[in-house]
Amino acid sequence: MPEAQQYYIGIDVGGTSVKLGLFDASGELLARESVPTPSLACAEGYAAVVGGIERLMGSQRQPMLFVRGIGLAIPCPVPASGVITVAANIEIDAPALMAALQDRCSGAAIRYVNDANAAAMGELWRGSARGHRSMVMVTIGTGLGGGVVVNGDVVDGAFGAGGEIGHMCVNPAEERICGCGRRGCLEQYASATGVVSNYLRACGRAGVEPVELAGPSDSRSVFDAARSGDAAALAAIDTTVDYLSLGLQIVSAVVDPEVYVIGGGASAGADLFLDALRERFAARAFPASSKCAIEVAELGNDAGIFGAAYVALRAVQREA
Amino acid sequence: MPEAQQYYIGIDVGGTSVKLGLFDASGELLARESVPTPSLACAEGYAAVVGGIERLMGSQRQPMLFVRGIGLAIPCPVPASGVITVAANIEIDAPALMAALQDRCSGAAIRYVNDANAAAMGELWRGSARGHRSMVMVTIGTGLGGGVVVNGDVVDGAFGAGGEIGHMCVNPAEERICGCGRRGCLEQYASATGVVSNYLRACGRAGVEPVELAGPSDSRSVFDAARSGDAAALAAIDTTVDYLSLGLQIVSAVVDPEVYVIGGGASAGADLFLDALRERFAARAFPASSKCAIEVAELGNDAGIFGAAYVALRAVQREA
Repeated sequence: MPEAQQYYIGIDVGGTSVKLGLFDASGELLARESVPTPSLACAEGYAAVVGGIERLMGSQRQPMLFVRGIGLAIPCPVPASGVITVAANIEIDAPALMAALQDRCSGAAIRYVNDANAAAMGELWRGSARGHRSMVMVTIGTGLGGGVVVNGDVVDGAFGAGGEIGHMCVNPAEERICGCGRRGCLEQYASATGVVSNYLRACGRAGVEPVELAGPSDSRSVFDAARSGDAAALAAIDTTVDYLSLGLQIVSAVVDPEVYVIGGGASAGADLFLDALRERFAARAFPASSKCAIEVAELGNDAGIFGAAYVALRAVQREA
Repeated sequence: MPEAQQYYIGIDVGGTSVKLGLFDASGELLARESVPTPSLACAEGYAAVVGGIERLMGSQRQPMLFVRGIGLAIPCPVPASGVITVAANIEIDAPALMAALQDRCSGAAIRYVNDANAAAMGELWRGSARGHRSMVMVTIGTGLGGGVVVNGDVVDGAFGAGGEIGHMCVNPAEERICGCGRRGCLEQYASATGVVSNYLRACGRAGVEPVELAGPSDSRSVFDAARSGDAAALAAIDTTVDYLSLGLQIVSAVVDPEVYVIGGGASAGADLFLDALRERFAARAFPASSKCAIEVAELGNDAGIFGAAYVALRAVQREA
């Protein structure tokens, strides 16, 4: 099939909206759509997604036949087998949704991918890691997400836990419990919530009142305080950098990527921590890996649609 | 080329001998050779390796033309690019050796691979991880080596440090220095040397005399003591299992393999630690990954020649 007749759809299924992007094979974003997230376990929900794809292709006056791949980024574990068994955060019947999409797009390869892993593939295709064959995405949001790319493909993991770097145990002595039920996860120190928690502990140690916080993951207020010289806020960021550099040291000893890409809401504080993170990582890393670059993500909230489309494109390339 | 005319050579370059194995495309070991390790930076050395290949092919009455792939496992970092810049433990001119091999075997794909990574690919091809697409090999020898396989291929790492799991920092508070110059590496607790060191510390804490040891990595004597009920030896093994289960928890949060394979000299103590390791890993792991299997290696010292040959075969398959 000529490349001009190959279109790829990236779909990012979030809690409130389903975002869709239409891409050509070179990764140009040609059009975008968004629909409120329906139940993805009934005919109406499937029709809402198919309708979005129809509008995208219609906007370019292209037939549905030219949809060559569809990637769906979803907020649940996607094992390497593609068989989804756990869907904690959304209502989805993955096989039935895939069947409905295949029915309308018979020539398309359709793939699910975990949303954090999709973001990694997006940054690899058209973001900060463009041109690389391996990378690790570190998404510092409310929690700490990750995506590992090796040999150009994302590591889903045998049980769908590939890139779950927020739940590496980096402090077996921790007494507080992580959201996952275990203790000492990297996410407890290096996430928006971790920044706030590091800050409140630093205030406690220093016996000072914390600044007003909008909630338990309001890292923005901590970053603002740090920018005006607040000692407890600076100490909190130091703790975050300490654990994050430890985490990257560990990841490099496992998969040794070419580059790390830091994304997520808390990457807005990169001006405060990026230089320190690069220095401390270089000092801690296994010598060969210390040259690994650390960059800030470029695609923001679009990383999911880019990456989902790219996962589908890679599947088509592999099968060609 | 018909499969019956495809032969693969696996070469394992060690400090004292170069072992060579001849394989068919299904992974049958047809013949083996061994030569004392020459300098691999001069014509005589290259000729010694080529001579080994000629004898292997001669033993099957097959022409050199049928050598379809040659893999060389070497004890130095091999980056994903294949360009070797550091060769600390052996004398090797990697490009010149490759040229000499290519000259005699013009139809062969030739690949270098780190020796620990080769062992992983060997166990994947014809050992304990046979039939899997992803695995992590844990080689408990004097040090702790590793090899990570994802989507059927080994993760060399951008800087050649893929699978260097012995140098993950698992205890930032450690004061003793690891051989790599850093502190708190997994290898300091989970290796033959680590078992002995854990044992001497346990003896110190208990105020008892250690059993006689043949050297700083004589884990065998510690295992023997444990089998006769020595409390300090049992405590040492408990410490080893504690750190090793932590290490596997971390690795699973990065690449989430289907199976771990435990090899190396100290795997001779598996009767003492395997059940405890499985239990403790399952309890620590991110829930989805807790089902990951942990097996003992099958190929022993042959893992290198199997894996080196398989790396070459995979390269041929990818290029086909």
